[in-house]
Amino acid sequence: MGGLLATIHGPADVQALDAARLPELCAEIRRVLVAFGHAHGGHIGSNLGMVEATVALHRVFDSPRDRIVFDVSHQCYTHKMLTGRAQAYLDPALHDAVTGFTNPRESVHDQFVLGHTGTSISLACGLAKMRDMRGGDERVVAVIGDGALSSAIAFEGLNNAAEQGGNMIIVVNDNEMSIAEDSGGMYATLARLRESDGAAGDNLFRAFGLDYRYVADGNDVAALVAAFEEVRDCDHPVVVHIHTHKGLGLPAVSPMTAAATGGEARLDGDAAVVAEDMDIREGRCEANHWQDPDSAAGRPLGARKHYGQLAMAALERRFADEPGLVVVSPATPGSNGITRAFRARAGAHYVDTGIAEEHAVAFASALAKAGGRPVLATSATFFQRTFDQLQQELSLNANPATLLDFGGGLSGADDTHSGAFDIVMFANIPGLTCLAPTGERMFLDMLAWATGPANERPVVIRVPGDPILAAERSGLLPAIGVGDDDGRSDDDPMPWSRYRTVHAGADVAILALGNTYPLGLQVVDALRRGMTAIADGDAAGASADAAVDATLVTPLCFSTLDEATLERLADSHRLVVTLEDGQLDGGWGQKVAAWYQNHRPDVRVRTVGGDTEFTDRVPLTDLNERYGLTVEQVVALVRDSLRG
Amino acid sequence: MGGLLATIHGPADVQALDAARLPELCAEIRRVLVAFGHAHGGHIGSNLGMVEATVALHRVFDSPRDRIVFDVSHQCYTHKMLTGRAQAYLDPALHDAVTGFTNPRESVHDQFVLGHTGTSISLACGLAKMRDMRGGDERVVAVIGDGALSSAIAFEGLNNAAEQGGNMIIVVNDNEMSIAEDSGGMYATLARLRESDGAAGDNLFRAFGLDYRYVADGNDVAALVAAFEEVRDCDHPVVVHIHTHKGLGLPAVSPMTAAATGGEARLDGDAAVVAEDMDIREGRCEANHWQDPDSAAGRPLGARKHYGQLAMAALERRFADEPGLVVVSPATPGSNGITRAFRARAGAHYVDTGIAEEHAVAFASALAKAGGRPVLATSATFFQRTFDQLQQELSLNANPATLLDFGGGLSGADDTHSGAFDIVMFANIPGLTCLAPTGERMFLDMLAWATGPANERPVVIRVPGDPILAAERSGLLPAIGVGDDDGRSDDDPMPWSRYRTVHAGADVAILALGNTYPLGLQVVDALRRGMTAIADGDAAGASADAAVDATLVTPLCFSTLDEATLERLADSHRLVVTLEDGQLDGGWGQKVAAWYQNHRPDVRVRTVGGDTEFTDRVPLTDLNERYGLTVEQVVALVRDSLRG
Repeated sequence: MGGLLATIHGPADVQALDAARLPELCAEIRRVLVAFGHAHGGHIGSNLGMVEATVALHRVFDSPRDRIVFDVSHQCYTHKMLTGRAQAYLDPALHDAVTGFTNPRESVHDQFVLGHTGTSISLACGLAKMRDMRGGDERVVAVIGDGALSSAIAFEGLNNAAEQGGNMIIVVNDNEMSIAEDSGGMYATLARLRESDGAAGDNLFRAFGLDYRYVADGNDVAALVAAFEEVRDCDHPVVVHIHTHKGLGLPAVSPMTAAATGGEARLDGDAAVVAEDMDIREGRCEANHWQDPDSAAGRPLGARKHYGQLAMAALERRFADEPGLVVVSPATPGSNGITRAFRARAGAHYVDTGIAEEHAVAFASALAKAGGRPVLATSATFFQRTFDQLQQELSLNANPATLLDFGGGLSGADDTHSGAFDIVMFANIPGLTCLAPTGERMFLDMLAWATGPANERPVVIRVPGDPILAAERSGLLPAIGVGDDDGRSDDDPMPWSRYRTVHAGADVAILALGNTYPLGLQVVDALRRGMTAIADGDAAGASADAAVDATLVTPLCFSTLDEATLERLADSHRLVVTLEDGQLDGGWGQKVAAWYQNHRPDVRVRTVGGDTEFTDRVPLTDLNERYGLTVEQVVALVRDSLRG
Repeated sequence: MGGLLATIHGPADVQALDAARLPELCAEIRRVLVAFGHAHGGHIGSNLGMVEATVALHRVFDSPRDRIVFDVSHQCYTHKMLTGRAQAYLDPALHDAVTGFTNPRESVHDQFVLGHTGTSISLACGLAKMRDMRGGDERVVAVIGDGALSSAIAFEGLNNAAEQGGNMIIVVNDNEMSIAEDSGGMYATLARLRESDGAAGDNLFRAFGLDYRYVADGNDVAALVAAFEEVRDCDHPVVVHIHTHKGLGLPAVSPMTAAATGGEARLDGDAAVVAEDMDIREGRCEANHWQDPDSAAGRPLGARKHYGQLAMAALERRFADEPGLVVVSPATPGSNGITRAFRARAGAHYVDTGIAEEHAVAFASALAKAGGRPVLATSATFFQRTFDQLQQELSLNANPATLLDFGGGLSGADDTHSGAFDIVMFANIPGLTCLAPTGERMFLDMLAWATGPANERPVVIRVPGDPILAAERSGLLPAIGVGDDDGRSDDDPMPWSRYRTVHAGADVAILALGNTYPLGLQVVDALRRGMTAIADGDAAGASADAAVDATLVTPLCFSTLDEATLERLADSHRLVVTLEDGQLDGGWGQKVAAWYQNHRPDVRVRTVGGDTEFTDRVPLTDLNERYGLTVEQVVALVRDSLRG
C-alpha cells in the first residue's frame, strides 16, 4: 500500500505533483481510508466523499498560512494525510496516533479542535477579520456540509460572512445526506441547484448575500482545482457548492458513480463485504455516526443502542392509542437504538429534525404544550447546543417533554464528545426533573411515568450506561423498580424523588448515582468482607481489615435532594460518600456535601467524581483510576475517613 | 383616552367591529402605547410597529383556538390589549398587572413565556405537528422579526417548517432594524424584496422551501387583513413578509410615513419631546432594548452602562496600537455602555453580529486564535444561548477571548432575563477563567490583564452590578486592586486566583463573592459592633450581643478555589459563610462547602445564595430577604452557627 502518499509530507508536495497524478493520489487515499476503516473505524463515509476536494484545497491553498477550517472536522482524514500525518493512516500500529478531528496540538495545519456542527463559518469569519485588522493577505476557507449546514449557527455565520466582506471561501460539501430518509426545506433548494447545475433561482447562499459557484462533480479533482483557483483570491466571501458522493469507493455507491471517478472504486473482496456490513449496521444516511472497525462486528449492543431499542419498543406499543406520542431525534438516531426499521414503522410518530438540537427542544416543548408527549433523544454532549431552550422554552414553560440523555457520564470519548458534563448542565436548571435509572426495569418505568398522564413537567432521563448494562448482563445487579420504594405512595406526584436504600447498614453510607451504582454495590460488598484498601505504599494489601456494614443508597433523581433520607442517614451514619460518573464541580455530590454542612454538620461527606477538565480518548478504566472511582480507592477513602 | 379599546374584551370583539373602524382602533392603541411608554417604559418602538398587524391577526384568526406565537414576545402589547387586558394599559394603576412578554399564566391567548429570540417558528412547528397528529384544523401563526430573524434557531425553524408541511403562517415583521447601524447578508436580500414589492429573486424564504407573500405597507390594517385572510387556511407553511415602521407614531418616524397611516402620528407635545429623548437615550436601532419610563430620565447611569462605558474607554485608548483589539456585541450594545459615539469612533474595532450569540462566541474564539484580543459583551441571560460554543469553540480551544458578563446576579428582572444562573453556567466549564471584580479599579485591572499579553486563556469577567456601584458612589467600598494581594507575585500567570483578605479576624470568615462584597462588609461591621440578629420571634432584637471579629475575604476568581487560603482559614476559623448573588445549586458556595467536607471537616460552612427557581419581577430587596442575603439574616446565621 502507498507509493505516492508516502512521498507527501506536506501541502508543498501536493502542489509539486504533476497535475495528471492527482487522480492517482486520490485513488490511493481512498484505498487507505477503506483499509483504515476496516482496522480502526471512523467517519469513513464522509471522508471518502471529501478526498478530491481536500487534495484540491491543499493544491490551491497554502496551509498553514492560508487557514482551512473543517466543520465538525470529522471529514479531515485526507487533510491529515496531506499534512504530515499519512503514516498514521498507513501503519496500523499508528492508527491511534491521530484523533478523529482536527487538533492544533497535532499540527499547525489544524486550526481548531471541533466536534459539534455548523461553527466553521463563524470561526472563519474570526480568522478573516483578524487578517483584515492586521492588513494580511492569507486566505480563509471554511469546509462545511454533510449535515452541518442545517445547524443553526451555520446560518448566523452565512449572514455575518456577507456582512463582514473580504476574502473567504465557504466550501459546501453537498452529499445529499443531510437529513436521514427525507428531504425538504433548504434540501429541496439544494436539489434544484444540483439539477440546474447551480443555475436555479431562490439560491439559498445568494439569499444570504454571498457569491456562489457550483461544481457538479465534487469528486473530480481537476474540476475542483479549477474552481478553487478561480475563487482563491476573491475579495469577498464566496460559496463553492460541490456535489460529492459520500462513501464513494464503497459498494453502496452506484457503479455509475464509481465509473465516473475513474475506477477508484475497485476494492478487494473483503472490503466490499465489510462495507456492506457497515452500511447495514449503521445506516448510510446518518450524517455524523461513527463506524466501527471490523473487530466490533458481532459484539453485543452497547448500552446506548440496547436501552434505546428497549425505549423505542415500549413507546411503539402505545403509538396506536396515543397520537401525541412523538419521538424527536436531532439526527444520528441509529446511535441511540432508533433503528431504520423502527423509524419506518413509527411514521408520523417519528421526527428527524436534522442536526438542529435547538429547534428540536423548542419543537418538543410546543408539542407538549399542545397536549402531546414528545420524547427527544440525543447525546449528552449535543444537548449542550440547546442549553438555552432547555432552560427557557422547556423548563420555564414547564411543558412535559421527556428527554433521553444518551452517553452521559465518563467515557473514553474524545474531548469534543464528552458525556461528563451532563449532570451539571441538566440538574441546575430550575424545574427540570432529572432521573438516573440504574437498570432496565427502572428505566422503562421512568419513561412510562414521564410520558404518562401523571407527569406534568419536563423530565430528562439519563439513559443507563455500559457499567449498568454489564452488571445487568452478568446478573449481579439487584433490580430496583418503582415497587421497592419504602416511602412512596401511589399519590406521589414524583415517584422518583425518594432515594432507594438498597442495603441498610450503619456508620457509613455510600450514595451511588446512576452509572456508579454497580461500583457502590462492589464497595459495600468489599467493606462487608473486610477487604483492606490497597493504598499507595501499603504493602499489607492482602491483609484483612475490620468489616464495615455500610449502607448503600441509590438516588434516582439528581435534580433535587431527598432531604428526609439525608436527615435519616445522619442519625446513624457519620460518613456519607457520594459517587457520580461526571464532573464533581457543579454536580450532585457537592449539593449533598453542602446540604450536610448547612443542616447536619455532624456528618462527614466525601465526594467522588470527575475533575473539571477536558479529557481526550483516555480509557474509562484510567479515568476511573484518576478520579478515585475504583473499588479499592473508594474502600480506602472510607477507611481513611473513618480513621480521620 | 379610550373609547373603542375599552369595548374590546377579546378577539370576538375585534372580529365584530365594522371594518371601517379598524384604523380608529389602531390609532387609539397607538396613543395608549405611547402613554404607557411614558409612564411605565417598555419595548414601545417595536410594539408601535406591530399595532396594525396584531389587530389584523385577531381579526382573521380565532385565538386561542388558533394559536399565535410571538417571537421574543416583547411586541405583544397590542395582543394583550385585544385579549382582555386593555385595562392594564389604560389604567396607570394596573400597568404592572401585565408582564412585558406573553405568559400563559396571564391568558389562554398566550402560548409561551418567551424572552429570548428566534424560537417562534420551532414552537409553531410543535403546535402544528400536534394538531396534525390529532387531526385538528386550528391554524398556527408565528410572528417573528425585529432582529429575531438573524438568530440561529430561526433558520432551523424555517428549514423544518417546510419539511413538516401543513398549515402554518409565519409573519415576518421586517422593520429594517435588525442589525444596529449596518446591513448586509440577508438584510440586503430583504431590502431587495422590499424594493421589488416581494418579487426579487434569491428569496430567502423560498430558498428554505416556503411559500411567500409580501405586504408592502405593514401598517395598513386593511391590507394586512386581506393578506392574512388569503393565507389563513393554507395547507402548507407560508411566510407573510410585512414591511412595518418601528416606532410609528413617535416623532423619529418621518412625516411621510406618518401620513401614510392616516394621521395616527398626531401626538401630544409631551410625547414628542419624550420620544425624542428616549431615542437619544437608547438608540432607535437597538432591536431588543427596554425603554425606560420618563421618571428614569436624568437618573445616574446604572452599573451596566457605567462599567461598560469605563471598559470601552479603556479599550479605545489602545485601539491605535493594537489592531487585534476588537469589541464584539451580539446586538443591544447600548444596554452595556457601548454607546453610538463609541461605535462610530471604534470603526473596525467594533463588530455587531446581530442577535447571534453563537456566532459571536465562535467568531471571538477565532479572532483570538489568529492573534487578536476580542472582547465580547452581552447579558448574562443571553450568554446561555451560546453555552456549547463557550465550552467547545472557546474553552476547549483555549483561545484568549474576554467575555464581559453584564447583568449577572440576582435582580428584579422578569423570569426570561434572569442573571441568577451565570455563575453556575460559566464556572463549571473547564478551562474558562471566571473573575468577579468588586470595584471599578479591579474591573479595569482585570480587563487589562485578560486582554493583555500575559493571559493566554479565555476569561469571563462578571461586570460589577448595582450593589457595588452604589457602594463605590457612597465611598464606602475599600478599593481592592491588584497590588493589595498578599500572596501575589508579578510572575503569577493568573494574578486573580488568590482570594483577598480585606479584614483578618478570627473564628468566623465571611467569603463574599462579587456583588455580595458590600453585604459582606456590612455583616463584618455589624458583627464587630455586637449587633444582635433580629431573628424571627426574637423579641430582644435591640439588645447587644457579644462582638465578633469576623474575617472578610473576597474571592476574585470563581472558577477555581484558592485552596491555600481555605486551608489557612481553617487553622483559625471554625465557621465559613459564603455569600453569592446567584443560584446556590451548582454555584460557588457549594464548591467551598464540599472542599471543607473533603479536606478540613473541622470547619463548618454555611452557604447563602439563591434558590433553584425562576423568579418574575420580584424586587431585589424581596429576593435578598427570601434568600437570607440581608445583613440581619447573615448576622443571625453566624450567631446561630456559632452556638450550634
